[in-house]
Amino acid sequence: MASNRQVEIALAAVKLFEKKGYHATSVQDIADEVGLQKGSLYHYIHSKEDLLLQIAHQAITDFNQRLETILASDLPAKDKLIQAIENHITVSAANIETTTVLLREAFSLGENQHQMIQDLSDRYVDLWTQILIEGKESGEFNVVHPRITALAILGACNWVYRWFRAGGKYDAKDISAMFSQLFLEGLLA
Amino acid sequence: MASNRQVEIALAAVKLFEKKGYHATSVQDIADEVGLQKGSLYHYIHSKEDLLLQIAHQAITDFNQRLETILASDLPAKDKLIQAIENHITVSAANIETTTVLLREAFSLGENQHQMIQDLSDRYVDLWTQILIEGKESGEFNVVHPRITALAILGACNWVYRWFRAGGKYDAKDISAMFSQLFLEGLLA
Repeated sequence: MASNRQVEIALAAVKLFEKKGYHATSVQDIADEVGLQKGSLYHYIHSKEDLLLQIAHQAITDFNQRLETILASDLPAKDKLIQAIENHITVSAANIETTTVLLREAFSLGENQHQMIQDLSDRYVDLWTQILIEGKESGEFNVVHPRITALAILGACNWVYRWFRAGGKYDAKDISAMFSQLFLEGLLA
Repeated sequence: MASNRQVEIALAAVKLFEKKGYHATSVQDIADEVGLQKGSLYHYIHSKEDLLLQIAHQAITDFNQRLETILASDLPAKDKLIQAIENHITVSAANIETTTVLLREAFSLGENQHQMIQDLSDRYVDLWTQILIEGKESGEFNVVHPRITALAILGACNWVYRWFRAGGKYDAKDISAMFSQLFLEGLLA
């Protein structure tokens, strides 16, 4: 289990990686942010890359676990999709820095570490696809290509971190409802 | 007008920025890629950042100009939306490296330069929003929040650069048709 100091360091890293980008953030910046000497910081972390891996891994694992819970419920596919959209957007909006680091910075990881995050991200796409397959099989959804449709919906939800502003006109729940309406009902009058 | 050498340098930079990321690419890497000494490269470019700005600026300006042409046509809003989706996805897929640099790396620009790209990107969102407003006013679309709906559709289209693979099962036109079907008709059977 992570110590308080380790949690504090990870939070500082998230903040800096989001603001300056992973490459432009030095280990010295992270040490300064938590008020440690650089040498002392290395008692708590292996490397800057390890911190990025830890942040991205925890973020995508959390998204996966929440979606697995939704999928395991007895709800109709339509309600699972509504919950999946609301879950993704509210979690992204409440953790906008972490989500930004996951979605924007993880490609900077070394090949093996990046592959680990990529595999977990592929798992997330699989879970969304599963909701669409369920809705197709139950006759709720008219969908020919569940995976491409899942990628369209997830892409729209993933992009929210780029434009969502806390305290704006619409909160995460409002936006989730608008997204569900669009994907379920379509635009045509 | 850009000389052949300048075009060659910009293409090399796009390739390296996409592969390694902007920060991890050095001016020396770009010089090596085009077979110039670093000192000679500076006859053609001001700085690495200037190259990034030039690449991102050209990419978003191209997206804007194409969408302005679609908007200026006499087509019904429904057909404008279908064209906008196909245009965005086919251009992204045909220029996946440039699109990746625009969407993933532009935040690394300095504040003023980044604001320039941000303003052009906001203009692009405005143009998509305009299509939705036209469709609402003509009675074609059932849409309450045109800008949020535009951001949903554009987000889905923007995300395509992350998963599209040339030579895959579906080409850019196939994917565009699936996206249009989803956004126009919705999932519900």
